[in-house]
Amino acid sequence: MSDVIRAVYEITGDDPAARATAVAVEQSHELPTDLAPPHTRESSLGVVTSLESRPGGPALATIEYSVDLAGGELPQLLVLLLGNVSLQDGVRLVDVTLPDDLVTAVGGSPALGVPGVRRLTGVPRRALLATALKPVGSSTAELAQLAYDLAVGGLDIVKEDQGLANQRWAPYAERVPAIAAAVARANAETGRRTLYLPCVSGPGTTYRSRIELAVAEGADGVMVLPGISGFDRIAEARDLLGPDRMLLQHPSFLGGFTASATHGISPELLFGTLSRLAGSDAVIFPSWGGRFSLTREQCVGIASRAREVLGGAVASLPAPGGGMSIDRVPELVEAYGRDVVLLIGTDLFRGGTPRANAERFLAAAEAVG
Amino acid sequence: MSDVIRAVYEITGDDPAARATAVAVEQSHELPTDLAPPHTRESSLGVVTSLESRPGGPALATIEYSVDLAGGELPQLLVLLLGNVSLQDGVRLVDVTLPDDLVTAVGGSPALGVPGVRRLTGVPRRALLATALKPVGSSTAELAQLAYDLAVGGLDIVKEDQGLANQRWAPYAERVPAIAAAVARANAETGRRTLYLPCVSGPGTTYRSRIELAVAEGADGVMVLPGISGFDRIAEARDLLGPDRMLLQHPSFLGGFTASATHGISPELLFGTLSRLAGSDAVIFPSWGGRFSLTREQCVGIASRAREVLGGAVASLPAPGGGMSIDRVPELVEAYGRDVVLLIGTDLFRGGTPRANAERFLAAAEAVG
Repeated sequence: MSDVIRAVYEITGDDPAARATAVAVEQSHELPTDLAPPHTRESSLGVVTSLESRPGGPALATIEYSVDLAGGELPQLLVLLLGNVSLQDGVRLVDVTLPDDLVTAVGGSPALGVPGVRRLTGVPRRALLATALKPVGSSTAELAQLAYDLAVGGLDIVKEDQGLANQRWAPYAERVPAIAAAVARANAETGRRTLYLPCVSGPGTTYRSRIELAVAEGADGVMVLPGISGFDRIAEARDLLGPDRMLLQHPSFLGGFTASATHGISPELLFGTLSRLAGSDAVIFPSWGGRFSLTREQCVGIASRAREVLGGAVASLPAPGGGMSIDRVPELVEAYGRDVVLLIGTDLFRGGTPRANAERFLAAAEAVG
Repeated sequence: MSDVIRAVYEITGDDPAARATAVAVEQSHELPTDLAPPHTRESSLGVVTSLESRPGGPALATIEYSVDLAGGELPQLLVLLLGNVSLQDGVRLVDVTLPDDLVTAVGGSPALGVPGVRRLTGVPRRALLATALKPVGSSTAELAQLAYDLAVGGLDIVKEDQGLANQRWAPYAERVPAIAAAVARANAETGRRTLYLPCVSGPGTTYRSRIELAVAEGADGVMVLPGISGFDRIAEARDLLGPDRMLLQHPSFLGGFTASATHGISPELLFGTLSRLAGSDAVIFPSWGGRFSLTREQCVGIASRAREVLGGAVASLPAPGGGMSIDRVPELVEAYGRDVVLLIGTDLFRGGTPRANAERFLAAAEAVG
């Protein structure tokens, strides 16, 4: 079976057998089978290999595609798995099994993943702690001071909010060196290594030039937004960053795929498998119990996918966020395990200085062990 | 009001007023307002300016954002409009009003649009006619022969299926020159100008190199997939193509946003306004009455958005597809108007040769006038 891509779809609605066949055709030939050249029916047509009806829930259809349909490229793999049927309600991609050779061909692994980020931060065992620099509208000096305070307080990763791009209040080329210097000063004082990750959202060719600037100015990696920039540019960023800088993925603009139970992509697959395949060291997603709508089961499933066997891919770090609090650290570590980046925003800014709250956050993670 | 971005959201569920305020905060500061530096509350916080309850339907919330939040960049505009709330069900972006200066700053216009594509094709008045080369699995020779037949038959645009990338059956660098030559031969025979558009889906840096190869090898433009490659790379493609080649947009992988009535983006806004703003000359979307689920009203709305005033942007061409037929040409032209690209696939391959069917398609469009 090593020459086959196996995709599992939930099919909601009438006649799931006909629907599954239509998906197999739509996603491969996009042409009725009687009109395709006979040799292509053998070589490149998707095939429904099983259909499981489930009373009270969607049917589960398994479709197999020739590995050659992906052509060894991540964009085409995404087109193949969900391109056109993304436009149809009632079809939801929930699982994918890939040949190892395809994982290798698409460069399908984080560069660092769990071991690499632990090496960079020097934190061997406990949960890793992160927050975002915000709000947009703050000056470069304000953001640099905040980054310094949070780093001194003990966070492992200080990343920029996705709201920060190149606005007039804190232009990219001004703030990145300033914040990198502030975090370096904190690190010199603490002896720890807090990583600073600026946000890179493009546009166009500036995607590369901003990553290059981040590298040149001493940032410890970048945060990218594949919902905006495309999943295939994650590998581009990874290769620009090299082996000693971290690549964090933000879910901005990806929710169209995960906010529905009847179409799109399951969050486990999108934030667990596909994001790791694309090359992200750590992947932010909205945890249960916050401002967003994933369930605990979905969130734990994302973490499982980040670690399971996927060709030769290194494990990525789940980074649950979106309304988490320091009080919940024990509960979150119990659910996700220690190989996790806990991303807390608002709760670090309320009822105390950011530095004091960062210290509380660190103490809470160390108490869990 | 020229310094304000105005966004309208449909809010489904309880307490739309509180929800609207939460969206305004989430999409700008992503921090409770009492925790933001006071000066940023003035400069960069989104504000709900109206809320209209509608019995039996979602509420309509209008939120105004400072134009400075977009920083003159399309990716950040998308982050601002829907980034985080894309992850929440019950919030759907349905309208956007942009200052003219922002439209200009993001390079927000097709290079050719309606007048430019009419100039290239030499078709001044009637609907433009297009189809896709497929299925994947066909050889370069088969695809080139099909392109020749369709061009001789009278189509204006022969574009590649989104299933074609760089697979072994017809590698990109092999098929593009072969198909370009086949279409050029047809054009020399007919005296018409059929445009050939290869599909470019990346990955990474090959996005640019494939467009450059298309230009060098005599293709008449390219088709790109912003759901895969990112909306900001449309302008990059446009600028590589220059003023005499066409940029066609395919909706692959965009359906997460449009397949739901309670989250994402309205198809009118996504395929009409935002795609044109990104720089696409023509925008494929699934028409009503085909294999997908948009309504006639939504489809006509997409066409309206493609033409309405949007800063200094040239009008783009709606390109309805997804199960259209030659018999429906009069109905489609009546609904969309003549400034449209009619995209017919399967029906051109059934019950006759592709060439004969292309001739019927052209005759049908000419009969409408």
